[in-house]
Amino acid sequence: MTYRMGIDLGGTTAKLALVSAGQKIVREISVPTAGFPNAALLAEKLGAAGKILMKGASVQKVGVGVAGDIDSENGIVRVSPNLGWKNVPLGKLLKKHLKQTVVVENDANAAAWGIFHTQAPKHTQNVIVMTLGTGVGGGIVLNGQLHRGTTGSAGEIGHMVIDEKGPLCNCGNRGCLETFVGGPHLIRYVQEALVAGEKSGLQTVYKRAPDEITPYLIAQFARKRDALALRVWNRVGHALGRAIGDLAYILNPELVIFTGGIAQAGSLILNPLWKTLNTRSFKTPIQALKIKIAADAPHIGALGASLL
Amino acid sequence: MTYRMGIDLGGTTAKLALVSAGQKIVREISVPTAGFPNAALLAEKLGAAGKILMKGASVQKVGVGVAGDIDSENGIVRVSPNLGWKNVPLGKLLKKHLKQTVVVENDANAAAWGIFHTQAPKHTQNVIVMTLGTGVGGGIVLNGQLHRGTTGSAGEIGHMVIDEKGPLCNCGNRGCLETFVGGPHLIRYVQEALVAGEKSGLQTVYKRAPDEITPYLIAQFARKRDALALRVWNRVGHALGRAIGDLAYILNPELVIFTGGIAQAGSLILNPLWKTLNTRSFKTPIQALKIKIAADAPHIGALGASLL
Repeated sequence: MTYRMGIDLGGTTAKLALVSAGQKIVREISVPTAGFPNAALLAEKLGAAGKILMKGASVQKVGVGVAGDIDSENGIVRVSPNLGWKNVPLGKLLKKHLKQTVVVENDANAAAWGIFHTQAPKHTQNVIVMTLGTGVGGGIVLNGQLHRGTTGSAGEIGHMVIDEKGPLCNCGNRGCLETFVGGPHLIRYVQEALVAGEKSGLQTVYKRAPDEITPYLIAQFARKRDALALRVWNRVGHALGRAIGDLAYILNPELVIFTGGIAQAGSLILNPLWKTLNTRSFKTPIQALKIKIAADAPHIGALGASLL
Repeated sequence: MTYRMGIDLGGTTAKLALVSAGQKIVREISVPTAGFPNAALLAEKLGAAGKILMKGASVQKVGVGVAGDIDSENGIVRVSPNLGWKNVPLGKLLKKHLKQTVVVENDANAAAWGIFHTQAPKHTQNVIVMTLGTGVGGGIVLNGQLHRGTTGSAGEIGHMVIDEKGPLCNCGNRGCLETFVGGPHLIRYVQEALVAGEKSGLQTVYKRAPDEITPYLIAQFARKRDALALRVWNRVGHALGRAIGDLAYILNPELVIFTGGIAQAGSLILNPLWKTLNTRSFKTPIQALKIKIAADAPHIGALGASLL
């Protein structure tokens, strides 16, 4: 039996997974990644961990997902703010230690590829995977292939501009999709409304423990028909509807899959989302579209990387 | 020598072109298309014209571009408002008369494919063609292939929503890109400003002959630094910058090509467009992008159809 190895390389931890041909994770280890003086030393550490993981298994290929701007063709991490890297030939460094072909890809793309392979129905060709969490990330599969674009930068769906006068985004622009959907933005929106004195069941929680205002709690209150909490999710759904409407017109995908913590709000998001989508005039690309929320997918970053 | 035939089938005229392997139009005829009681009769007429065009030439393949919602896989025109058609098996009808393989495609896609083949540098892989005219149309080439999407509806770039509270679009939605760029919208914008009494060299023209307010004239006045005329083109450039910024983030193309009458305003559009694009925070996909205005391309619809 042959296996593949996937590495999800983040700023604090790397997750390494040994994946079977049936796309199951058979072994998994984590390695801390912070505090390495240079990339070569971290690659050596990852190489050592990888060798332990692969012991006794016939491995065909290694894939790595890294947060940042990646030159996938040459296996180079152009910039990774989380790792503090610039122009690191990660593919080459890992190949030296692992004696395997190494594919390097952006982590959002790797995760999207994993979701596509494990959660999209067979023969699905055009799929957009959106991670709704602290940030909003994306990965685009067209004609069954990951669409990377000219410099591997494709899929930055979270920074489509929904309202150019909208809230300030971490990226520096205003009104990106992420500012209407990302967890910290939802919390800030609620806190501002509560500070302004809006009536809501969340006021009691906020006065007792402001830190307890989380997307999870906002969803709980929305299910109890709290007006402020409902407005938050209607706003999330509407912004996603705006973005997905544009994506449907541009790319005409058959499936959008949501993953990430925010996506767990489920119908609180999907109902207003479809309400917005259904206002679009051209019906064919909207009717061709399905939207689903991914099943729980632990280690999807490493799994997806293994399938690159 | 072998040839291809392309047909650009519109609501009033069909243009048929015989195209050489070197992508030159060697013969061309036009056929009126209005007033046919049914699609079969029009197909018969097109077949007869096609046979005349192909006389003495060895033709390999026929491509047809049709305005409307097209099922390219099965050669069916799902809906064409201009032709008044619903579910017409155009590929089959034409094949009967022409005894050739017939490919049917949306006309904007066909034109984009023609522009891509004749005006994009060799080895260019990811290109977006935008037709800026009465409407705003699009065609998307990814990895060197026309991207059709799940139902062949991809590329509706003109109806990306730039401002959901923006002007009403012909499609029924508000603030589509087309409402900031399409010729009739520019004329209306100027007329409204003039009626409201705004000072502008265009007032004299408007009072004498309101119909003489055209995009061409607005461009002439902008080149003479007329404030209203300049504002129109800055608005066009900004809206295109908004849309292309999103497209760069989503698809990361290397080239956008503008064609159509409005695109002839040239730097009046490109300067504000780049000003808006350059405000985007992620630099890699923006720096990877070139924007050019297509050279004059007569019969590009028929030429593009022949290359399908």
